[in-house]
Amino acid sequence: MVRVNDNYLKLPGSYLFSTIGKKVREYKAQHPEADIISLGIGDVTQPIAPAVISALHTAVDEMARAESFRGYAPDLGYDFLREAIAENDYRARGCEISADEIFVSDGAKCDCGNIQEIFSADCRIAVCDPVYPVYVDSNVMAGRTGDYDAAAGRFRYVIYLPCTAENGFSPDLPSEVPDLIYLCFPNNPTGAVISKARLQEWVDYAKRNGAVILYDAAYEAYISEPDIPHSIYECDGARDCAIEFRSFSKTAGFTGLRLGFTVIPKDLEADGVSLWSLWARRHGTKYNGAPYIIQRAGEAVYSDAGRQQIRSQIAYYMDNAHYIYNGLKEAGYEVSGGINAPYIWLRTPDGLTSWEFFDRLLTRANVVGTPGSGFGPGGEHYFRLSAFGSHENTAEAVKRIKKM
Amino acid sequence: MVRVNDNYLKLPGSYLFSTIGKKVREYKAQHPEADIISLGIGDVTQPIAPAVISALHTAVDEMARAESFRGYAPDLGYDFLREAIAENDYRARGCEISADEIFVSDGAKCDCGNIQEIFSADCRIAVCDPVYPVYVDSNVMAGRTGDYDAAAGRFRYVIYLPCTAENGFSPDLPSEVPDLIYLCFPNNPTGAVISKARLQEWVDYAKRNGAVILYDAAYEAYISEPDIPHSIYECDGARDCAIEFRSFSKTAGFTGLRLGFTVIPKDLEADGVSLWSLWARRHGTKYNGAPYIIQRAGEAVYSDAGRQQIRSQIAYYMDNAHYIYNGLKEAGYEVSGGINAPYIWLRTPDGLTSWEFFDRLLTRANVVGTPGSGFGPGGEHYFRLSAFGSHENTAEAVKRIKKM
Repeated sequence: MVRVNDNYLKLPGSYLFSTIGKKVREYKAQHPEADIISLGIGDVTQPIAPAVISALHTAVDEMARAESFRGYAPDLGYDFLREAIAENDYRARGCEISADEIFVSDGAKCDCGNIQEIFSADCRIAVCDPVYPVYVDSNVMAGRTGDYDAAAGRFRYVIYLPCTAENGFSPDLPSEVPDLIYLCFPNNPTGAVISKARLQEWVDYAKRNGAVILYDAAYEAYISEPDIPHSIYECDGARDCAIEFRSFSKTAGFTGLRLGFTVIPKDLEADGVSLWSLWARRHGTKYNGAPYIIQRAGEAVYSDAGRQQIRSQIAYYMDNAHYIYNGLKEAGYEVSGGINAPYIWLRTPDGLTSWEFFDRLLTRANVVGTPGSGFGPGGEHYFRLSAFGSHENTAEAVKRIKKM
Repeated sequence: MVRVNDNYLKLPGSYLFSTIGKKVREYKAQHPEADIISLGIGDVTQPIAPAVISALHTAVDEMARAESFRGYAPDLGYDFLREAIAENDYRARGCEISADEIFVSDGAKCDCGNIQEIFSADCRIAVCDPVYPVYVDSNVMAGRTGDYDAAAGRFRYVIYLPCTAENGFSPDLPSEVPDLIYLCFPNNPTGAVISKARLQEWVDYAKRNGAVILYDAAYEAYISEPDIPHSIYECDGARDCAIEFRSFSKTAGFTGLRLGFTVIPKDLEADGVSLWSLWARRHGTKYNGAPYIIQRAGEAVYSDAGRQQIRSQIAYYMDNAHYIYNGLKEAGYEVSGGINAPYIWLRTPDGLTSWEFFDRLLTRANVVGTPGSGFGPGGEHYFRLSAFGSHENTAEAVKRIKKM
């Protein structure tokens, strides 16, 4: 008699963005005339850069001719892309990461969700609170978290690292020692960054305790200030204790094209076993490579034209970020983020809960954002706005919030 | 102190096709003049059909303009593709499968590898012997198989279903009752098919015993004879006990484009839990959808022009299959498959082991195939040749084998 993985049943309710979608649809049904602006889900809106479009067309034409057709891609990605990543994202910043330490995939979400598989089921995980839900949920499914305590909004065996206004939304070292530490900077949802000195403390802590840091740098392209690390491998010793995730989704608007990568240094071991070889085995067994044409699109992101076009796309979104940040500040809100990240994190006014503020924003301003509590109990009384809208929509949304 | 998932360490040796690749590279290094023909790995060689290329270009252009740009795809796939699949692959064959029971993904390999996650870790699995390695390896990684017995070439807790010349390479019902039953027809590697009556027996058996059948129909487009089921949902009661995997890889040459889908009927339950909802949760948490442009390419496969072009592509490969089948038969080999599948399964001559025949074929004919024993101990003394080469290479390979 077949039985299900009952760890799945420990997951509370539905996925955050499904709940938001449902609330918005219901409101729309009741107010069909409402002109709703979404600064909610972190999806981009600008079209794909011309250099990338051109690379896509060229690659599609290659697939049309027998002599240039490509079937199965190499499991770990095409060398042309892995070389471009190693050169531009790592060597150019002084990090010694080689092309064969890069695993190309269809996105950082999949990799962040799947990476836990190569670790023992009894490893303790630590996550920031608030946090991107995928880190926790994928570990719940694997049975690593224990039961959910609905009153506390927390899973029993997870070590939560509070990220608060007091610590600048950058977590302190925990007293209870975890085996796996998820860190994401620039942070989703708070938009906070971590200084190099503080990240070095985490690397030293992980090395001292035999822990592995799972570092999500999906938003690194939004860093505008100097001295903020773009990669964990800028820290001494990170090759011995850290795995890094990167994405083309927010860097180059690839949310609909699907491309990302994971870096695992060859010398990174646990129990004397190479984590590189375990992940390679997983890729070989359960994955079949990102599409050739999408990998060519990724390569074009690193061309001279591509880099320039993508820089101006990021600047476009960061104009929105500054506009929201300044507008809300003027309106008296307590805001953070938005300087090195496309997210603005604001404290809800009048002691409202995150969901109460969601409803107020939806009904009074017809603006959709993301309740902070959806990212964990530490996000309660906070709210996330994203900078990925158009200038026009963003300006209109801020105007409405100010009037509210 | 971090620990690894030591189930990974139970996996024997390297992945079959890596070993083949290594042997071929070594031979090439020693014999740089050798003109090696590969009828080994099941990768297609014909370019993408014109109707699909045209759809890809159109979709790429949509991504270039803000008004038609698409970001994140719906988790479970775009409706346009799910509707086309439901209509053409199911309703047209009298199967009642609706669009919302179809989960679009980046390939059947990933889905076949990941599906086991939604089941309990103590479920017993049954697999054919020989078998596509992904079914077994993904369960080894999840700790469902126990240790590997190198002498037997088998995992301790797996129920193996012998597929032999005696049973026409279509497995008999096992005495020991499994919870999860992997079946693949048309079969990889044997090229065998299952009759509708026999598949119905399996469905009845699964229902009687509360088991779930995981049915891999990746090669259904190659079925040429009538009365062979294309889908398990052609059997009565399959909606209550079966999940089906399909792929565009072999149907339409998408090995480098990456597109497939999984069907889970809404009424399919285990422990009173909907398997549809568990898989939807997995998709939502660990996956982010297939690229928009690739989903448009998939839709074009079902257009009138697309269907016609793809039919002639399949006919091209099946010409190869018949050529290999007849050629080897004339040369005195015992062959099967090749009629409803792009694989020819042959018995090695002179009592050679599969790997001995591999070496003989490589060194005497400069032809690469796949040793049957790589698919499990039941494949020993067998060998797989694939029909995915060009006509010219296939004819030359057969000529050389005949002369050998």
